Amino acid sequence: MQVDTSKRLILYARDEFGGGHSKTAEGVIRFGKSPIVAVVDRQHAGKTAKEVCGAGENIPIVATIEEAAKLGGEAMLLGCAFVGGRMPEAWRQDILKALDLKMDVINGLHDFLVEDEEFLASAKRNGKQLIDLRKPPDNMPIANGRARALDAMTVLAVGSDISIGKMTLAIELDRLATRRGYKSGFVATGQTGIMIAGSGVPLDRVIGDFMAGVIEELVLEAAPGLDMLFVEGQGSVYHPGYSGVTMSLVHGAAPEVMIMCHKAGRDSTEGKGEFPLPDLNEMIRMYEQIAGIVRPAKVVGVCINTSKLSESEARKVVDQAAQLTGLPATDPVRFGADNLMDALEVVFKSRKTTAVQAK
Amino acid sequence: MQVDTSKRLILYARDEFGGGHSKTAEGVIRFGKSPIVAVVDRQHAGKTAKEVCGAGENIPIVATIEEAAKLGGEAMLLGCAFVGGRMPEAWRQDILKALDLKMDVINGLHDFLVEDEEFLASAKRNGKQLIDLRKPPDNMPIANGRARALDAMTVLAVGSDISIGKMTLAIELDRLATRRGYKSGFVATGQTGIMIAGSGVPLDRVIGDFMAGVIEELVLEAAPGLDMLFVEGQGSVYHPGYSGVTMSLVHGAAPEVMIMCHKAGRDSTEGKGEFPLPDLNEMIRMYEQIAGIVRPAKVVGVCINTSKLSESEARKVVDQAAQLTGLPATDPVRFGADNLMDALEVVFKSRKTTAVQAK
Repeated sequence: MQVDTSKRLILYARDEFGGGHSKTAEGVIRFGKSPIVAVVDRQHAGKTAKEVCGAGENIPIVATIEEAAKLGGEAMLLGCAFVGGRMPEAWRQDILKALDLKMDVINGLHDFLVEDEEFLASAKRNGKQLIDLRKPPDNMPIANGRARALDAMTVLAVGSDISIGKMTLAIELDRLATRRGYKSGFVATGQTGIMIAGSGVPLDRVIGDFMAGVIEELVLEAAPGLDMLFVEGQGSVYHPGYSGVTMSLVHGAAPEVMIMCHKAGRDSTEGKGEFPLPDLNEMIRMYEQIAGIVRPAKVVGVCINTSKLSESEARKVVDQAAQLTGLPATDPVRFGADNLMDALEVVFKSRKTTAVQAK
Repeated sequence: MQVDTSKRLILYARDEFGGGHSKTAEGVIRFGKSPIVAVVDRQHAGKTAKEVCGAGENIPIVATIEEAAKLGGEAMLLGCAFVGGRMPEAWRQDILKALDLKMDVINGLHDFLVEDEEFLASAKRNGKQLIDLRKPPDNMPIANGRARALDAMTVLAVGSDISIGKMTLAIELDRLATRRGYKSGFVATGQTGIMIAGSGVPLDRVIGDFMAGVIEELVLEAAPGLDMLFVEGQGSVYHPGYSGVTMSLVHGAAPEVMIMCHKAGRDSTEGKGEFPLPDLNEMIRMYEQIAGIVRPAKVVGVCINTSKLSESEARKVVDQAAQLTGLPATDPVRFGADNLMDALEVVFKSRKTTAVQAK
């Protein structure tokens, strides 16, 4: 999946911007290359993006698609995702409106725009594109551990739950590695990551048998010439709805090292508390065991999402995580990820030494 | 997915019957309800099914589809599956021939017949059906552990690898439970199982996000009124190509007990030996840990596929497995599964006692 990141975007968030469902919109604001001219959200109209989500500076929030189009939007990104990725019926009129206002529509949901006759007809009539980010790749191989022996050091963010910052961490680490002079890359495995990176594979849309295979392929394509490769995490083995996707990602990417991601205060997976989470050390052991089936991989750091906490509470929670696990811990959004990058550098340098000695 | 099991079948195995790829054909011969009039295989033409695969009694093997059609075939089942489930191009002419001979064609591969214009046109012209067993269900929910609290005791066969007899075991146990007077059911999760049971879900064809959800749904639908429910296993957490499917199945079905399946002599997963298997006890621990995320579930027995061994070697290997694990072990095809059913009955009766005491 390839996306043209040069087009001016409007981010459609309806009444969801800044809430738990707008992570695609927020991810693109924080990390995307695309220029953004407006966010569409009726509840927050009149404010700026920064006032609502803490990023995006002066990007205006407007109430209607018409206003956003006037600001120069060339493509409308559907910037929310719900459990299971289905499309709310209420969006239909707004999508048709965007097409009539001569904008492409970019969609990250499981329901494809191109499979809808009304959308198709409108796009054709208006000469505009429908881009479904979750369209799976055509080439679908079976995984076979081919990503186990790369020159690049593959790093995968794994997590206690969904929506806790695995993608954010991978992007931050990729940037940090580049700043420290490494040849670094980011591999997107979900619709937001693809929108940000401009390419990738929507793993959760791939058929079961081929999930690990497409990730393996993606990693093999991205790795040549790189020192470090950061793979966007997905789901959690602790969430029964998504554990299969996570398993495939761990086995397809065959990471050399992992970072454990968790959200402060979340003691069960998203939902009604049906699935209590064990402590950090047990989760780390579980991921190391599972990953070890394909390739021995250690968790070398912990990432805690402290977005709901005050600065001092956040510091405390991060320190506790470090103490409990004996690993460097941080909230990368709040405190940066330098300590995690330090830990990754240690691994990277030790393997280089080993390689030199072996010669 | 529903299949009419009253139609007379011919089993298309081309040159593969009795080999490693014909497990669909053999499964239907061993366990299916459908009447079978012939197997089509050029290499074994002239023999009977029993001579080649040890089951099926006098079902004749013929060289051509024409001969099979003359024996009264109403539908042709594509009876082989290859890694990844893609269709060999050489089958095309034979499928068209079957349609011209007025037979439906039933297909368990990932490549769908109904998506092929030539097949579609021929089926329409001949007034025959194309049945793709791997067509996923329309209703695709996200799993949420709803199968954790059923009155029926759910039993899942898990395994060290693919193609080692997980389905066979589940079907044998279902029959045995019925013979012992229990209300028992079998839930099919793969194309062969669906062909045998007449319904089920092709799990490996379902999109990642919904795999566990469709299994949960299937189990919830099948369980009411039953004492025991046997769920067809899929893949293995030790095979990187299929571990995600297996994970979803374990978390979606949320079994109460598991049986560990292994093939004698297989010390690495199918392929070139890239993925060595740990010993039985370690594999059992791994499955118990993974299952435990959703629902605590013990492995209560071991199933060893000894098809490659002599009778005395088989006995020895089964005994060793029992000794190593401290659990009842058997090869159900060779020695029956009474000892596994005994172990399941112990669990079933103890939970009944507990339930009565609780009242």
